[in-house]
Amino acid sequence: MLLQLSTWPEVESYLERSRGIIIPIGSTEQHGPIGLIGTDALCAEAIAKGVGEAVAAMVAPTLNVGMALHHTAFPGTISLRPSTLIAVVLDYVTCLARSGFDRFFFINGHGGNIATLKAAFSETYYHLESIDREVKCQVGNWFACRSVYQLAKELYGDKEGSHATPSEVALTWYLYPDFIKKASMSETVASGYPIYGSRDFREHYPDGRMGSSPDLATPEHGRRFYEVAVKELSEAYLQFMG
Amino acid sequence: MLLQLSTWPEVESYLERSRGIIIPIGSTEQHGPIGLIGTDALCAEAIAKGVGEAVAAMVAPTLNVGMALHHTAFPGTISLRPSTLIAVVLDYVTCLARSGFDRFFFINGHGGNIATLKAAFSETYYHLESIDREVKCQVGNWFACRSVYQLAKELYGDKEGSHATPSEVALTWYLYPDFIKKASMSETVASGYPIYGSRDFREHYPDGRMGSSPDLATPEHGRRFYEVAVKELSEAYLQFMG
Amino acid sequence: MLLQLSTWPEVESYLERSRGIIIPIGSTEQHGPIGLIGTDALCAEAIAKGVGEAVAAMVAPTLNVGMALHHTAFPGTISLRPSTLIAVVLDYVTCLARSGFDRFFFINGHGGNIATLKAAFSETYYHLESIDREVKCQVGNWFACRSVYQLAKELYGDKEGSHATPSEVALTWYLYPDFIKKASMSETVASGYPIYGSRDFREHYPDGRMGSSPDLATPEHGRRFYEVAVKELSEAYLQFMG
Amino acid sequence: MLLQLSTWPEVESYLERSRGIIIPIGSTEQHGPIGLIGTDALCAEAIAKGVGEAVAAMVAPTLNVGMALHHTAFPGTISLRPSTLIAVVLDYVTCLARSGFDRFFFINGHGGNIATLKAAFSETYYHLESIDREVKCQVGNWFACRSVYQLAKELYGDKEGSHATPSEVALTWYLYPDFIKKASMSETVASGYPIYGSRDFREHYPDGRMGSSPDLATPEHGRRFYEVAVKELSEAYLQFMG
Amino acid sequence: MLLQLSTWPEVESYLERSRGIIIPIGSTEQHGPIGLIGTDALCAEAIAKGVGEAVAAMVAPTLNVGMALHHTAFPGTISLRPSTLIAVVLDYVTCLARSGFDRFFFINGHGGNIATLKAAFSETYYHLESIDREVKCQVGNWFACRSVYQLAKELYGDKEGSHATPSEVALTWYLYPDFIKKASMSETVASGYPIYGSRDFREHYPDGRMGSSPDLATPEHGRRFYEVAVKELSEAYLQFMG
Amino acid sequence: MLLQLSTWPEVESYLERSRGIIIPIGSTEQHGPIGLIGTDALCAEAIAKGVGEAVAAMVAPTLNVGMALHHTAFPGTISLRPSTLIAVVLDYVTCLARSGFDRFFFINGHGGNIATLKAAFSETYYHLESIDREVKCQVGNWFACRSVYQLAKELYGDKEGSHATPSEVALTWYLYPDFIKKASMSETVASGYPIYGSRDFREHYPDGRMGSSPDLATPEHGRRFYEVAVKELSEAYLQFMG
Repeated sequence: MLLQLSTWPEVESYLERSRGIIIPIGSTEQHGPIGLIGTDALCAEAIAKGVGEAVAAMVAPTLNVGMALHHTAFPGTISLRPSTLIAVVLDYVTCLARSGFDRFFFINGHGGNIATLKAAFSETYYHLESIDREVKCQVGNWFACRSVYQLAKELYGDKEGSHATPSEVALTWYLYPDFIKKASMSETVASGYPIYGSRDFREHYPDGRMGSSPDLATPEHGRRFYEVAVKELSEAYLQFMG
Repeated sequence: MLLQLSTWPEVESYLERSRGIIIPIGSTEQHGPIGLIGTDALCAEAIAKGVGEAVAAMVAPTLNVGMALHHTAFPGTISLRPSTLIAVVLDYVTCLARSGFDRFFFINGHGGNIATLKAAFSETYYHLESIDREVKCQVGNWFACRSVYQLAKELYGDKEGSHATPSEVALTWYLYPDFIKKASMSETVASGYPIYGSRDFREHYPDGRMGSSPDLATPEHGRRFYEVAVKELSEAYLQFMG
Repeated sequence: MLLQLSTWPEVESYLERSRGIIIPIGSTEQHGPIGLIGTDALCAEAIAKGVGEAVAAMVAPTLNVGMALHHTAFPGTISLRPSTLIAVVLDYVTCLARSGFDRFFFINGHGGNIATLKAAFSETYYHLESIDREVKCQVGNWFACRSVYQLAKELYGDKEGSHATPSEVALTWYLYPDFIKKASMSETVASGYPIYGSRDFREHYPDGRMGSSPDLATPEHGRRFYEVAVKELSEAYLQFMG
Repeated sequence: MLLQLSTWPEVESYLERSRGIIIPIGSTEQHGPIGLIGTDALCAEAIAKGVGEAVAAMVAPTLNVGMALHHTAFPGTISLRPSTLIAVVLDYVTCLARSGFDRFFFINGHGGNIATLKAAFSETYYHLESIDREVKCQVGNWFACRSVYQLAKELYGDKEGSHATPSEVALTWYLYPDFIKKASMSETVASGYPIYGSRDFREHYPDGRMGSSPDLATPEHGRRFYEVAVKELSEAYLQFMG
Repeated sequence: MLLQLSTWPEVESYLERSRGIIIPIGSTEQHGPIGLIGTDALCAEAIAKGVGEAVAAMVAPTLNVGMALHHTAFPGTISLRPSTLIAVVLDYVTCLARSGFDRFFFINGHGGNIATLKAAFSETYYHLESIDREVKCQVGNWFACRSVYQLAKELYGDKEGSHATPSEVALTWYLYPDFIKKASMSETVASGYPIYGSRDFREHYPDGRMGSSPDLATPEHGRRFYEVAVKELSEAYLQFMG
Repeated sequence: MLLQLSTWPEVESYLERSRGIIIPIGSTEQHGPIGLIGTDALCAEAIAKGVGEAVAAMVAPTLNVGMALHHTAFPGTISLRPSTLIAVVLDYVTCLARSGFDRFFFINGHGGNIATLKAAFSETYYHLESIDREVKCQVGNWFACRSVYQLAKELYGDKEGSHATPSEVALTWYLYPDFIKKASMSETVASGYPIYGSRDFREHYPDGRMGSSPDLATPEHGRRFYEVAVKELSEAYLQFMG
């Protein structure tokens, strides 16, 4: 069930059988020469919908913009500051807790969100405890699923890299076959340099890739990533609801 | 062009010919017994994409959650506090201004967002001026387009109401024909009572409608609303871009 | 009754018969070549006192500074950022709610305050609900009263304009006859250009007027504006109090 | 010169000869059985106007509400939180610094404001330095003037106390002779107990006075306080301006 | 007892006999040519431990960084903004109040902290009252103890000054005899100029001293300061605990 | 070199040869029946000092309190909210950047700090870039050093656990041999349950341990942990400084 495509009486009914909700969160950030700027949001959203169907859970609308400040020297990137994202998550959870939801499963498509999400959960628990409410939040990173990791390793080995990866590009190609982009890329690609500010990032990763060869992607790979991720995160959701 | 489905080099190219961007903003809030919770976001998103195509402008991902605190006594509503939404808008605009964008056209689907958006624009201008940057923001409310208003009047007269209206429901039916909901509704519907807090709101508007008869909607009406709104807001965008 | 000129035991007595309070809010901003910088605060204050007398309501001290960031390129303007004004309104209402007040009627002299005030009310309701309190806030804009509008139209037609208007100047002349300023003004006056940042505003409205001819004002006009505004807002207050 | 009663071109002229401005700040808080709730704001405002005349300085509108959280258990008290007041002062100073002002002389009527004002000045300097601006702020507490202190000692000895004092009550009686209140008060009055939270405060200072006998005040005393305060603060202003 | 060197069951036991805790707060800021940057924190910490032993009270870890923005033009200074320090104090007190502590005695080593601490206490009381909790906070400034003042006067007369004083330097020499620094200093030293921004401060106090001759210090003086301060603040703590 | 035990001219000299600084950060939180509440801060501080000596780097005073909200249901725990810790880190780095430091190496003793520190770094980079400054921050978690991990595995195998671990307890025993605590502990210890709010945490980890047997610690183990951690983090620091 998609929250956006439900009515409030339907949500009321849903809450009689479950208090869990899935919230997809992605990012709007450069993904190298051929990766879509929306990659992280689009992947998180598709997988969240898949999981929602598999486990009959409510799926909230996607947080399309996350914490991607280090990518802001590339045109098209949008990011929240961490303190803003903390406020946003607190607001989401606090509102939905009023509705009666008490388990929040964030399906995340962007590594850069993880730290701020964890911080936001702590801030939210503390705020809600001060007014005598308790909830539980969890992050499921689709790209970090064991099955996804194994498949990426099998398909791409070292060329998976850590940003603008062939696995996430493959998934977007599966989801959006009309938006398969091509561009010439240098064979050598920067990798291993730590992330600091945005200018420094662009200087060290001039085309936006981090050790990845996104041109290895195929839509068929994407289908396989989608399936294993949905399967693994569905199990994670059920265990979380446990 | 959709920002999410573009690559950063494509954005770079786009910026050579235009510095404008369209940002759809909606809400995730109760819309009465048959209206979809995502109505405001879904309508804003569809119209923004339509305008983007018509005027060859970049369209950012949708802000799905806006300022709907007064609806939070109904299950399923998610809202940002105004101070959070101000921070979110400031972050969006500040990031995109770094990319080179300087005209921000928000296509809005929710009356409750207007006040906070205006406040956010002021806060953002002031912040950017303090670091010597200047941008321009504008809101285009699709539901307040003259052509939309006239069509709604013609089709529904007084029964348009002001929340969970047949016009917006019609638009969602046109966009999402598989999600046409039915429910029995009282013939009399509350209207005219001012909006205060969320408990008070639910007490006075017990099924969530404000003076509206959403069951008058048809998908065909929705198509007409879509078309006039896209047309009128496309003109508004071009005028804004000067 | 003026809160500032009351003792706390008098407030305690007042609360036994009424839980309503009037809060004047204005702005400290340029008002063109002859308009007083305090125009919006002075008008709101005078009318609030008039209403307070007419309906025997408590009147709080005036919020002299509001949201006028777009005027800050003119010397003498003081503004709060919207996020600051939201905090201020939340603090006012929260404190007075502890006293037992639960109806807050803001008499407003500045169009630029309206959006932020609405945002502030939402933020305040939400905060107070989280600690189990409920209040109601309303804005009465004296310059937008139907009777004021009609009188301005009758007296000035198109030359009323939208900032540094003859109606508000007239009112200050009635209230402060020793501070009637004169200056030569260009006959043509800018109008119709949207409001963005402060530098842009001054560039387009070089003497600060927006489509207005403030030199049409007379103190006698001011008296008439005062009277119709007090009358109409007194009725609005009584209706608000139910 | 009063900023509120000036036009922006007059401010522009003023700035050619001086970059200093006086900002009165008071409080809206209980002042015992007969003291006016607005005492601190009314006194600061009157003295600021007197100083402004004496030294030909611009006087900004009065900050009527300050930091009085410890008085909020008495009806009628309004206070900002310290963090809000810091934001307000930062906004005032930042706006006026854009105009060209660089010396800010706060004439203060409330001891409880001093700490937060000092904190606010530091926060403001730091913010402005980050964008390469420099200003100077100073507080002049009328009630702490040496001449005021001596006069109060001479007139009231120990019965001056530290809140709802006869000296400030006298000053309001001089300024507002129509608002001289009477009430029976216990002869013994609490004093010497430290200030913590608002409930604790009211418990220990049940009628709001702190060691004072405000009924010793006379309007004539008020005139004398007014005169010595204006004189001493005028000198302080001139010294501040260097 | 030092909180850092206790276990939670020991804290639980402590709370059965006392609800008071001592929190040392200092600063990390320039202290002239020979004063240690940590002077204020090191002194506060040592005295707090001494008081803790004398009165068998729990001592929290030291807040090493306080409000020293005006010193930030000298290398090595670290400061919180006042609004940050308010949040920090609120967090400390709120957490410890959950544990059951309700009396917070801050032993302070830096004059620049006093204003912000007072503001923070008000903000904290107000927040805790809103969720029905009450606590009491107090500051004990070791350098402002009557006995310290008298000893400094006796030893140094006018040469005590007001920053980088021989008394505080003496105390650090007593505590850290291996870190006695020497440097040539001008005989004349700036004094009496008010504190504004950090650049202005350094311009007027070029070597960081304010009217002081820190080279008059001896470790033996330091021992005496330590002893009188511990004695006086121990009495103050016991009185605070009532 | 310890910043607290340096003078500002010494810092000025230091900056001529290095722009790096080490900042120890710990936590003040329950560490099970025998672990010290200050464990994380004490360990981080000792190791930071060791690294500082080894690499001749400046060491700032310890951030004794970090992000430990989930431990606040145990008495004695103090935590900052993540948003507060972000502000604190931003203030530290911003001040020290004014001094000329541009490499910030945080030596961290608490896993719960990592997420918020990462968020804080992003927020800080973004803020500083907006005013044209660039710095680099890095976290070195002593407990996550490869050599520490291997030693803990060798000494304790599975009984290392993840909170109140024998390795950190051993280190405190080495550092503070007078504070070796004893208590009877259940042989079975909870582990593997995720961290949500503080009440939930205490319910699932009733004595505060997470899968650990801290009574396996010895001071001699602590010495070995200290040495390998200092060695590994010294190398990390030098690599960071490039």
